[in-house]
Amino acid sequence: MAKLNTWVSVPNNSDFSIYNLPFGIFSLNSDEPRAGIAIGEQIIDLAAVSELGLLDVEATFFRQKTLNEFIALGKKTTNKVRLDIQKLLVIENSPLKNHPEVFVLQKDATMHLPVQVGDYTDFYSSIEHATNVGKMFRDPENALLPNWRHIPVGYHGRASSIVVSGTDIHRPMGQVKTNEMEAPVFQASNRLDFELEMGFVVGKSTQLGERISVENAAEHIFGLVLFNDWSARDIQKWEYVPLGPFLGKSFASSMSPWIVTLEALEPFKVEGPEQEPTVLSYLEVEGEHNYDIQLEVGMASQASEETIISRSNFKYMYWNMMQQLAHHTVNGCNVNVGDVMASGTISGKDESSYGSLLEISWGGKKPFELKDGSMRTFIEDNDTITLKGFAEKEGVRVGFGEVTGTILPSK
Amino acid sequence: MAKLNTWVSVPNNSDFSIYNLPFGIFSLNSDEPRAGIAIGEQIIDLAAVSELGLLDVEATFFRQKTLNEFIALGKKTTNKVRLDIQKLLVIENSPLKNHPEVFVLQKDATMHLPVQVGDYTDFYSSIEHATNVGKMFRDPENALLPNWRHIPVGYHGRASSIVVSGTDIHRPMGQVKTNEMEAPVFQASNRLDFELEMGFVVGKSTQLGERISVENAAEHIFGLVLFNDWSARDIQKWEYVPLGPFLGKSFASSMSPWIVTLEALEPFKVEGPEQEPTVLSYLEVEGEHNYDIQLEVGMASQASEETIISRSNFKYMYWNMMQQLAHHTVNGCNVNVGDVMASGTISGKDESSYGSLLEISWGGKKPFELKDGSMRTFIEDNDTITLKGFAEKEGVRVGFGEVTGTILPSK
Repeated sequence: MAKLNTWVSVPNNSDFSIYNLPFGIFSLNSDEPRAGIAIGEQIIDLAAVSELGLLDVEATFFRQKTLNEFIALGKKTTNKVRLDIQKLLVIENSPLKNHPEVFVLQKDATMHLPVQVGDYTDFYSSIEHATNVGKMFRDPENALLPNWRHIPVGYHGRASSIVVSGTDIHRPMGQVKTNEMEAPVFQASNRLDFELEMGFVVGKSTQLGERISVENAAEHIFGLVLFNDWSARDIQKWEYVPLGPFLGKSFASSMSPWIVTLEALEPFKVEGPEQEPTVLSYLEVEGEHNYDIQLEVGMASQASEETIISRSNFKYMYWNMMQQLAHHTVNGCNVNVGDVMASGTISGKDESSYGSLLEISWGGKKPFELKDGSMRTFIEDNDTITLKGFAEKEGVRVGFGEVTGTILPSK
Repeated sequence: MAKLNTWVSVPNNSDFSIYNLPFGIFSLNSDEPRAGIAIGEQIIDLAAVSELGLLDVEATFFRQKTLNEFIALGKKTTNKVRLDIQKLLVIENSPLKNHPEVFVLQKDATMHLPVQVGDYTDFYSSIEHATNVGKMFRDPENALLPNWRHIPVGYHGRASSIVVSGTDIHRPMGQVKTNEMEAPVFQASNRLDFELEMGFVVGKSTQLGERISVENAAEHIFGLVLFNDWSARDIQKWEYVPLGPFLGKSFASSMSPWIVTLEALEPFKVEGPEQEPTVLSYLEVEGEHNYDIQLEVGMASQASEETIISRSNFKYMYWNMMQQLAHHTVNGCNVNVGDVMASGTISGKDESSYGSLLEISWGGKKPFELKDGSMRTFIEDNDTITLKGFAEKEGVRVGFGEVTGTILPSK
């Protein structure tokens, strides 16, 4: 990678290096939300930069509550904005040096959901996660269902309840029936879980009836976020046959505020796991389509510091994003700018890399300890879950920041 | 019901009587789409009526591509608009008599999707349909799954691919694996089906964490439409375990263009089937919450007139809309104006009232005849499916018009 030096102060190990420059929506005090780019501990106010005449995109596209209209301008335009900002942050005689008002401290800003999500799809693309779940809930000898290696299995999720990092979530109420009960009861979930996922944001719409090929899929992916698909396992277990997860998921999903572009992640591409048996031709794809992104999950009680309870990696995904998008549209289903497609829980091979408490506590059978000495199987009230992720190679770091959320008692 | 006489010519048996006055979005020639109310064979241009100073709502709310902003004004306002129009169409000295320009012939107009659908949920609330499917796919002796009588089972559908009546649909391609095949193949669906459903449009948003009680649910329902949840049974069968229907449904769903308000349907309320065992308290509801709406399905080949292949009724629903909405939000899931919640296939007890070809042809085993003498089990290319529905009582008719769609060959 060409070495870039910025005149802006960026802390060592910042996720938001000069190589990253992710897009988000922020507000200051009671201002209207608007678009920005993160650099180090600051945010660049894109509308303000545009008003200085330094960008090809009019400020009105940045003075918006979401990035949808900006993203819809297309990659040629959005990539140029990112590269123009990069240049402005690198060149010695940058006009931005005379305009401190375009910089906002991240700690002073409120972050918002970066896109209006039209449709949200959740995949199930980690073979380790699908195998673990299959072992627990079905047959340990035939943990993977027959379709799993042929289809990037996914389902439609609830878009309305996607919230930005930092939003508190009330423990959901719902119907629960354990094997011991004669009839279901209505109660607060007591098997509340997180799911360590990444999601991609669709950057280019299609018409109904149009297919996206694996080769063209990257053109339709604007960028990625961290995604926590909160799950109430007890509600889910009773409701999910035969039509899939519903209220066990729809009370909330949390996403990180900064969308890291696919272009910023280009240096971190790696080959994915071998797919055996061979997939159908519309899913066949050559080359590197996985991404080496280190992930970790922190859990903190109200009393304790965070305990790292999992370290995983996005590169483990059996099905890659190009295959997910090709599959999703192979029937002619249309996608829109701002749609979010999440990976499904990203588990690795060993116990220290499992992406959910269901797996970490093996269905509640293996309690584990937090730093304050308290034990956990699932999430208790006032616990906070924080997902972090970054890619790093040859001293270059491109990260996602975090997606965090605290579970409050049920209402 | 108080007898109303309008000075507008309305054909006998029109679905769009003076008692109905449903809302929709129409355009003429290359005009921008805008809001209207149907009466007989005409449409009243609401923006034009507003500009005459005859409505409390500004024309800007009607000069919109969808009804979302109008609906979000709230029932007090939207009901008053409907009643004001009703009065203008009834009174002798109506100012509209001097303004023929506010009337547009339906046959000259193009109808559009009436709302932007944020989230779409599909329920599974007909006990006859769920039992038929269970008999075919699972155990005839235990056709209903254990959760079915406790939960209004539902799942998230794809909002982006909801289209307005009259939109042609290309037969979807997808992965199919029959029991006889060793491995799945990629092909055009050859078990393409419709589902006779009704959907309701959410009229009042909630915040995340808020619940809607069965008692308050009607406040959140703006009105109803006919809904055809096209289904590719072969794709669905291979993909749906364990996370539910996905590409077997997401290629398209069709809805009728006119939203009939809940208020217009008030005279047609009836009691629903007895629910046994007793439901949990958050689902308990007294009184009349089903609606006596007669439904029929017509099927036509390219060569033939329509054959009526099913007659059903919305009153058969085991779970009513109030229970569906209470259940959907009991975990705190938020709803937005414009969300669509569909009933699931509405089948009656006997074969002539089944709401899908899966049931009518009993999984393809019982071919039936169309008027041109050709036989069908599932939908063939260039076949047209049309759903119609109306309520009628004491000479008053309130109907939905139709939702129609033609299946074109796969692309």
